[in-house]
Amino acid sequence: MLTTELKKDLEPISVNTRADMVELRLREYLNKKELKTGDLLPTEMELSEALGVSRNVLREALSRLRMLGLVESKKKRGMVLTNPDILGSFERVLNPQRMDTSTLKNLFELRLVLEMGLADLLFVRKTAKDIKELEAIVKNGKFEDDDVFRVTREIAFHGKLYEITGNDTLKRFQIMLLPVFDYVLKNENRSVKSNISHTDLVRILKNGTKEEFVVGMREHLRPHFELLKNL
Amino acid sequence: MLTTELKKDLEPISVNTRADMVELRLREYLNKKELKTGDLLPTEMELSEALGVSRNVLREALSRLRMLGLVESKKKRGMVLTNPDILGSFERVLNPQRMDTSTLKNLFELRLVLEMGLADLLFVRKTAKDIKELEAIVKNGKFEDDDVFRVTREIAFHGKLYEITGNDTLKRFQIMLLPVFDYVLKNENRSVKSNISHTDLVRILKNGTKEEFVVGMREHLRPHFELLKNL
Repeated sequence: MLTTELKKDLEPISVNTRADMVELRLREYLNKKELKTGDLLPTEMELSEALGVSRNVLREALSRLRMLGLVESKKKRGMVLTNPDILGSFERVLNPQRMDTSTLKNLFELRLVLEMGLADLLFVRKTAKDIKELEAIVKNGKFEDDDVFRVTREIAFHGKLYEITGNDTLKRFQIMLLPVFDYVLKNENRSVKSNISHTDLVRILKNGTKEEFVVGMREHLRPHFELLKNL
Repeated sequence: MLTTELKKDLEPISVNTRADMVELRLREYLNKKELKTGDLLPTEMELSEALGVSRNVLREALSRLRMLGLVESKKKRGMVLTNPDILGSFERVLNPQRMDTSTLKNLFELRLVLEMGLADLLFVRKTAKDIKELEAIVKNGKFEDDDVFRVTREIAFHGKLYEITGNDTLKRFQIMLLPVFDYVLKNENRSVKSNISHTDLVRILKNGTKEEFVVGMREHLRPHFELLKNL
């Protein structure tokens, strides 16, 4: 029977330590050797021998790298390095239900920061076609009070803005952040109303300046900024 | 010997398919059951039986979930759900050397968007102490032409801005984006000079308005925005 003190002083080695270490070692190896996309990795046998671990542990670590999109198994060639999907794993863990309050708050703020920072890209990349599409999204504004309509159009409108930036990473990132936004907005204070509607923002994007757009977006997002104070 | 056509029509099943499927199935299960942080998972035996897969395949998938920070093995309790580290895996794959040009460009733009969107959080959260620290960072501005000094102070200054937001996710995110920024900046056109220095930005943050700060930051980042045209 172990004494409580010994248990406290000597933390048990996690069952996962070896796979963690092998995964880290392999990532360090890939970076140190400055391997590039398409380069071939040593065989499983060579790797497990060099690392002094069983094939099972090695395979576990390699499986993680495959999930991250760092390596790919090619029939008859072996493992090659790939262009990682940088947002793939982010997508896998982004479930608002299992986030602590401070992470939720941080991601909510992150989206506000993105939204406030879009103006420059928007004014460089917007086309007449984009403006037309935004105009189509915002018409029927009279239904603004209907909740389902409101949320659907909210997503369509802001999603279209991200699309105009022409930046796929940004666009995908904001889609991932939607559930978080949704989750936080359940607590929104509906008594705070913005004086700038989607229609106003489209008008500014069409005929106004970047500076006006930033000011307009700030007013448009005021109910969300207000919410920050209570988080 | 297979005909080329058959090879093209029937893609070989990836060696990894089963672990991929089990991983996906487990993540769906966690979401569907609306399991929360701290909840206990079924045992490995129960899971492998329900999924109809070997313990090895199951363990491979569970190892991935552990890496993502979705589950944790607790001695004597079994596997429990954890608060995922949402940026951990992002950190694991962010190596500019293995990114394609469009991903690099997207992340470069993403950082510019963040930088342009910081003003609101900065003006809500800045303290007199923060301003003092920024002032300490920007003094000795006369060495601006020394490259090493310039980069070090660049990182210190912008890093401090993210710190002022009080948003750890944002701060960590920008630290991760630094190598990308660095990588892209090797191609920077040094002939484009900004008329707004760090010192000017600190002055605006101290005595100016949000609106002035956005305009100042835009001018400060002009060499980077110019670079976008060539990417």
